Amino acid sequence: MGEEELEQEQEQVVNPWEVSAKDGGKIDYDKLIDKFGCQRLDQSLIDRVHRLTGSPPHVFLRRGVFFAHRDFNEILDAYEGGKKFYLYTGRGPSSQSLHLGHLIPFMFTKYLQEAFKVPLVIQLTDDEKCMWKNLSVEESKRLARENARDIIACGFDITRTFIFQDFEYVGGSFYNNMVKVEKCVTYNKVVGIFGFSGEDHIGKVSFPAVQAVPSFPSSFPHLFSGKDDLRCLIPCAIDQDPYFRMTRDVAPRIGYHKPSLIESSFFPALQGETGKMSASDPNSAIYVTDSAKEIKNKINKHAFSGGQDSLEKHRKYGANLEVDIPIKYLNFFLEDDDELEHIKKEYAAGRMLTGEAKKRLAEVLTELVERHRLARSAVTDEMVDAFMAVRPLPNMFD
Amino acid sequence: MGEEELEQEQEQVVNPWEVSAKDGGKIDYDKLIDKFGCQRLDQSLIDRVHRLTGSPPHVFLRRGVFFAHRDFNEILDAYEGGKKFYLYTGRGPSSQSLHLGHLIPFMFTKYLQEAFKVPLVIQLTDDEKCMWKNLSVEESKRLARENARDIIACGFDITRTFIFQDFEYVGGSFYNNMVKVEKCVTYNKVVGIFGFSGEDHIGKVSFPAVQAVPSFPSSFPHLFSGKDDLRCLIPCAIDQDPYFRMTRDVAPRIGYHKPSLIESSFFPALQGETGKMSASDPNSAIYVTDSAKEIKNKINKHAFSGGQDSLEKHRKYGANLEVDIPIKYLNFFLEDDDELEHIKKEYAAGRMLTGEAKKRLAEVLTELVERHRLARSAVTDEMVDAFMAVRPLPNMFD
Repeated sequence: MGEEELEQEQEQVVNPWEVSAKDGGKIDYDKLIDKFGCQRLDQSLIDRVHRLTGSPPHVFLRRGVFFAHRDFNEILDAYEGGKKFYLYTGRGPSSQSLHLGHLIPFMFTKYLQEAFKVPLVIQLTDDEKCMWKNLSVEESKRLARENARDIIACGFDITRTFIFQDFEYVGGSFYNNMVKVEKCVTYNKVVGIFGFSGEDHIGKVSFPAVQAVPSFPSSFPHLFSGKDDLRCLIPCAIDQDPYFRMTRDVAPRIGYHKPSLIESSFFPALQGETGKMSASDPNSAIYVTDSAKEIKNKINKHAFSGGQDSLEKHRKYGANLEVDIPIKYLNFFLEDDDELEHIKKEYAAGRMLTGEAKKRLAEVLTELVERHRLARSAVTDEMVDAFMAVRPLPNMFD
Repeated sequence: MGEEELEQEQEQVVNPWEVSAKDGGKIDYDKLIDKFGCQRLDQSLIDRVHRLTGSPPHVFLRRGVFFAHRDFNEILDAYEGGKKFYLYTGRGPSSQSLHLGHLIPFMFTKYLQEAFKVPLVIQLTDDEKCMWKNLSVEESKRLARENARDIIACGFDITRTFIFQDFEYVGGSFYNNMVKVEKCVTYNKVVGIFGFSGEDHIGKVSFPAVQAVPSFPSSFPHLFSGKDDLRCLIPCAIDQDPYFRMTRDVAPRIGYHKPSLIESSFFPALQGETGKMSASDPNSAIYVTDSAKEIKNKINKHAFSGGQDSLEKHRKYGANLEVDIPIKYLNFFLEDDDELEHIKKEYAAGRMLTGEAKKRLAEVLTELVERHRLARSAVTDEMVDAFMAVRPLPNMFD
């Protein structure tokens, strides 16, 4: 690790492989915005999205889940001037099943695709997971296809969406762009950004170029041939920002626009808001494969409550919504603004008990997971092939 | 540069980007064999090649141009037991025209292909040259195709030869193998082998994996599908040894045979044997595009002579063949052993003058270059496409 990283360890750490708050507390997102140098997504931008698309802003926008950006205004300026853009998001396929936190960027990206009617590329970095998690090439490839099913189940429009996995797609113009990016980034630079050490392998050292190049339209000649001027918007969790800071630094040097970003906070673990969920603890998250009973049990047993220790005290002081996981989760997934406000008011006043809030959360998540399970079961092998086929997209900018 | 490299600078330096002898003297090949840990190619191996193939050993074998190897005996053991292998060689396409030194590995590889009747893959590392020489992707690609013409003009059998350029071919199984290799090699390791510094870009750091993977049959599924056990023999100049030392270290860890190598000394510059020729000085080498007049002039003006200063002294002491470039060049390219012996004897005794040796060399090289020019002019775009097409090879092991 570089010096910068060591200093940071006493503070909070946010990078693609580690998210931890200062002294086990909460992530300080204001500090993160300052440190990363991105911008806060303010109400005027949200209003502008509403106006330009004619669609009501997604709950993740209204409630500040996507809270930061880089040059999102430039995307909107261009859009307003009649210039479309494309969306790029992705996932490192390290597990068979996704949890709710994994769905957030995809649910939001689907909304953006519908609202702006633009094409979308989704990168599955099976090569990254093969390298970081020491999975075999074959297992990484298999997980990428499994995860593609979950992504497709989020409802993406096949006429505007290209999903690819690196182990299959890297090559041609995509590889040419990788080399162009690699030429612009020194080893010292990636050490500064990502904190690699000399004992890290050379695959890790060069991987940032693989995640960078989907930001450039020429990496997809079957989609954007002759459209090198097309802008790219990347919805992602803010831990991915280091990749795209690097990408934005390189872009003008190789003749492309800097990609714009719209960045989310982290979905908290059931045990409380101290960072991301842990794949090694299945009780820290609700998975899209959990049954209704598992969801109910996980929430009842593990969801951190802001309610008081005793009924008496709860009735008197009410719940602390700042730390209450049922409220935080409902904030993500209960779409009805009025109902959410009502629950928050009653719960904070002590008139609603933790059990009731948890019960409502279990209903909301069971419905969400059930809907996802049904959608996923309808995704055939042929559909996966179709989304992943290297092909032109018929409805790209209609 | 690592410490090892610094120490070495006072001695000779041989790596893929630098060849320089100690104190401006000659490369000490015995020392190089010791340092690299390869083996000397002795007469018994040459005799064995003769016996196994039924073809007379190539002049480059008979005269020690290819002088070192790694496990070449294992290739011959397998071949004797009825198991074929494949050949892998390559070139970094950094210039429009090749000089005679560039032709040597290809002339030798052609002989091996004919003698053993085995398939051959030829890698054009346009990505490497784009990164090291700061050429554009497009210019690097163009040079690769230009160089492919020269390579084809060496007479390779299209039914057994696949030529590829990285910018076009990297992807699929080839890329999967790149990631497998990268996972096995730390940054510290490549610094130790290649002497990179923190200010080198990440493309250089990971490039060794690109040159490594053609050593593994699964990088060519259209050729060697299901033949993961196939051995690979790499004819190359000894400055490429660091790449394949690394490759041999990695191979068993990812389930492949270590590639075998057969390695040549360097073709000397016209000015004398102090290393490789310099691309920045056109008078240091004979190019395959030089006219008969240019060849004659270059040899007469620039070829370092081991003859004496005056006719009198020359008649008395004779030429010093150890430093005489006409003799060294004739040693590579005058096929007639008897004639070569005769020239050496007469010249060393002072009965033959430098001018006569140079005249004979000009004839030999003019004929070689003329033959090459004719062959190259017969190489059509369609032939380049055909050699570079990703296809099965019909006569692979017949």
